[in-house]
Amino acid sequence: MGEDKKEEVCCCCEKHKERSDKEYRDLMNRLKRIEGQVRGIQGMLEKDAYCIDILVQVSAINAALNSFNKKLLANHIGTCVAENIREGHDEVIQELVDVLPKLMK
Amino acid sequence: MGEDKKEEVCCCCEKHKERSDKEYRDLMNRLKRIEGQVRGIQGMLEKDAYCIDILVQVSAINAALNSFNKKLLANHIGTCVAENIREGHDEVIQELVDVLPKLMK
Amino acid sequence: MGEDKKEEVCCCCEKHKERSDKEYRDLMNRLKRIEGQVRGIQGMLEKDAYCIDILVQVSAINAALNSFNKKLLANHIGTCVAENIREGHDEVIQELVDVLPKLMK
Amino acid sequence: MGEDKKEEVCCCCEKHKERSDKEYRDLMNRLKRIEGQVRGIQGMLEKDAYCIDILVQVSAINAALNSFNKKLLANHIGTCVAENIREGHDEVIQELVDVLPKLMK
Repeated sequence: MGEDKKEEVCCCCEKHKERSDKEYRDLMNRLKRIEGQVRGIQGMLEKDAYCIDILVQVSAINAALNSFNKKLLANHIGTCVAENIREGHDEVIQELVDVLPKLMK
Repeated sequence: MGEDKKEEVCCCCEKHKERSDKEYRDLMNRLKRIEGQVRGIQGMLEKDAYCIDILVQVSAINAALNSFNKKLLANHIGTCVAENIREGHDEVIQELVDVLPKLMK
Repeated sequence: MGEDKKEEVCCCCEKHKERSDKEYRDLMNRLKRIEGQVRGIQGMLEKDAYCIDILVQVSAINAALNSFNKKLLANHIGTCVAENIREGHDEVIQELVDVLPKLMK
Repeated sequence: MGEDKKEEVCCCCEKHKERSDKEYRDLMNRLKRIEGQVRGIQGMLEKDAYCIDILVQVSAINAALNSFNKKLLANHIGTCVAENIREGHDEVIQELVDVLPKLMK
């Protein structure tokens, strides 16, 4: 996210998405924490940690990733999807419909 | 996993688990790849990547983590659980029963 | 879905949703099949079926229900959500954002 | 589950499983309730219920089925799996390892 950030808080055109500073930092912090969790499990493996303890930690990472995805998706619908529909770019609907099954149970 | 690894390929006593070299390397390689994927998403975020593209990549990490967990769990059942039941340490059953809901849908 | 169905194929106002005959029949058929699957498992239980066989059948029902939900959600987004956004009823966005976590992993 | 139920509370041989009366009734009651929930959704569809309301109810059925599966699996591990391992029938391990991925996220 460069310094030359344009005024608009959301631009979804040309398959790019400028995020507000607040959203960017929140998402990046989540990813840094998740990276730390993955390295934590590497450390557990090096110390011959018990399988059950590793399984529980991996589940925690999955939960953190799902929480990240829910946050991102909610923002996407509230900004990109809504704006594009208002402007008549209805292809955003099919795009959303196509990605949801990947995220659902 | 040091050089002073003992003879036994599986010891699940005292909440530790010695893994075979092959299993250790497989699991560690998976974690290194997953760490790389998480960093890849940080890079996408820095480049203002489109929400949908990020959502798809995060789903791929979730799938990789679940695959890691399935591998680890299968090995745990085939070694620790089976051995402990044979030796009369039935508390391993309750432990497995308690962790499964965390891993199930 | 009575005979007095109005002209419009989609009306999402007042928390109702008129579905096209085709969509209605598709969804209802899926539910009838799912009901049959649930009764099938009752029959398995009565015949002392093996746990593993029951677990597999229950997983099949879960998959059928998820498939039903994906279908319904895709239709909801393509009709109700899109129409309401176009007409300025943006509360449909928050409603969608609130329900998605219940459907996601 | 006939009247001629044998003494043993668990017999997992020949791919059958005799369940205690208590377990049988608990599992059957859950299935009856789930069948009622599926019919309830058919009723919602007939009354042109709103998509979001249907999605939430289907999620509730999924949760009930998962809860049923967790119960059944816990009992299977505590009885069939443990007994078979003690008696040297280790094929029960592979069987469990094969079914778990179907039940996991």
